Amino acid sequence: MSDKPLVLICYDLLTPMKGAIEAQGYEVALGWEMTPEQAAQARAIVHAGEHRLDPDFLLGLPNLELIANVSAGYDGVDVPWCRAHGIEVTHSAGLNADDVADQAIGLMIAAWRNIVVGDAQVKGGRWNNQARLRPGPGLKGKTLGVMGLGYIGEAVALRAEPFGLNVAWWGPNPKPEARWPRADSLLALAQASDILVVACRADASNAKAVSKAVIEAVGPNGLIVNVSRGSVIDEDALIAALKDGRLGRAALDVFAQEPTPPERWADVPNTVLTPHTAGGTTDSLPQMFGQAFENMRRQFAREPLLSPVAAG
Amino acid sequence: MSDKPLVLICYDLLTPMKGAIEAQGYEVALGWEMTPEQAAQARAIVHAGEHRLDPDFLLGLPNLELIANVSAGYDGVDVPWCRAHGIEVTHSAGLNADDVADQAIGLMIAAWRNIVVGDAQVKGGRWNNQARLRPGPGLKGKTLGVMGLGYIGEAVALRAEPFGLNVAWWGPNPKPEARWPRADSLLALAQASDILVVACRADASNAKAVSKAVIEAVGPNGLIVNVSRGSVIDEDALIAALKDGRLGRAALDVFAQEPTPPERWADVPNTVLTPHTAGGTTDSLPQMFGQAFENMRRQFAREPLLSPVAAG
Repeated sequence: MSDKPLVLICYDLLTPMKGAIEAQGYEVALGWEMTPEQAAQARAIVHAGEHRLDPDFLLGLPNLELIANVSAGYDGVDVPWCRAHGIEVTHSAGLNADDVADQAIGLMIAAWRNIVVGDAQVKGGRWNNQARLRPGPGLKGKTLGVMGLGYIGEAVALRAEPFGLNVAWWGPNPKPEARWPRADSLLALAQASDILVVACRADASNAKAVSKAVIEAVGPNGLIVNVSRGSVIDEDALIAALKDGRLGRAALDVFAQEPTPPERWADVPNTVLTPHTAGGTTDSLPQMFGQAFENMRRQFAREPLLSPVAAG
Repeated sequence: MSDKPLVLICYDLLTPMKGAIEAQGYEVALGWEMTPEQAAQARAIVHAGEHRLDPDFLLGLPNLELIANVSAGYDGVDVPWCRAHGIEVTHSAGLNADDVADQAIGLMIAAWRNIVVGDAQVKGGRWNNQARLRPGPGLKGKTLGVMGLGYIGEAVALRAEPFGLNVAWWGPNPKPEARWPRADSLLALAQASDILVVACRADASNAKAVSKAVIEAVGPNGLIVNVSRGSVIDEDALIAALKDGRLGRAALDVFAQEPTPPERWADVPNTVLTPHTAGGTTDSLPQMFGQAFENMRRQFAREPLLSPVAAG
């Protein structure tokens, strides 16, 4: 038996990171194949917060001290339950906001200016010159509403300004230092917006907050971009609204279920869909893993954690 | 016979604009089906400058005074020849720079962050969680080279700044007022650039200026975006470099031949291709047509033209 702390991976997405965690000086076991002895020894989980960690599973890890999320989000972790059971939770704070915002703007333009559709036209031999005289609107002078003005929302807003987009935002907490106006409500933001970018942290308070009414307020000429979590949007309502034209377009990196079943989108028009790739690049992922590793080091050294999740 | 000035359309792309031109108080004929009488009477051509107007054809229009391009580019018009034959040439100056720059940034992100590829993965049922740990680079800290710092190039550069991209540029003429550094040559710009955005005006001086050497200088991890004209890039060299990995990616709105034959791109990896849609939106097209119509009004009223093409 090793005297190195035992760290678990409980999400198959992270299996390729086993060697990198071992290189930090830990033993690593995979949660779905660990022995009872490993369960008894496990002191930390390196995790990606969108994947659910069931409290019943965590109860079987009596020496667990820390869940170190490499992700910014931690919606799959019941933080109050963990705190009540003496388990610390950390996450990546702000490290991939630029990457996520880059992709949000890319999704916005790809949808608004028909880049994905155009690519298919060119490659499919369906380029028709007449179609050039059936253009869509430009971006300048339109209103971009940002739901959630955290690291990511602010990075989206800053990128939007030189496009001539008018930026507004809504979040549950006023931010007197924000340079853009806060709408009175999410519905009011949606009504004012041509494009709504969902960039908030997902939690129980905002499940399906982008409701049928909010979706219809963005409207038949509007676009909804989601780089937050699928849970924030009523996805069934979104699909229904796209199908009958009550919503113009949707550009989504996150889904109610991931991977999202392709048949769910087969007859849904005017979508751009990416496989939850906004937050990870070769620039930000090493930083995010580095922050998780530093949180583990501090936890085992009994030093203050670098990026615990916010109290609440 | 009408006493209204007779205006020609000589490019089938513009046929749908016949009614709008007539509504300005003109007779309109289509150049490919006009009568000899109409050829003798024609005083102006409403045109889109990427389409070639052959001097031999223009010689058959003895009363032609003006070629009013609705486009910014006028590479299909032999301006010195027209001037020598008493024909004025106008174009759209700056009106769609925002639209073109928007699409350039959209093409850049769509290619760099695999948005088109990701959309196909999701919709094709090929979303694989493991692929999330094979990410590509982010944008922050990379260098964006802009070829041609006119209205469009400057609009691209301004949009690029909040992404954390370092902007440099090259064009044949120094611009002491430019806020970004000018490279010593196009090749030097390409060597310094992760992403090269081609945004110059196309003319005889820069045909295939983006040569094999320039393409290889952008390199295996680099991206070339073209929103100028296909003529500026050696397209055969570009395709060969993409095929064997000497160039990383290309995102093109313009092509050597338009529509570009789809079989030309069938086995070329890492491309995003749009059907020359960057410059036209429902916001900018009415302005561009309005400027062409105003140039015609001024020409026939013997007033100074609003936007003649630059001397040269």
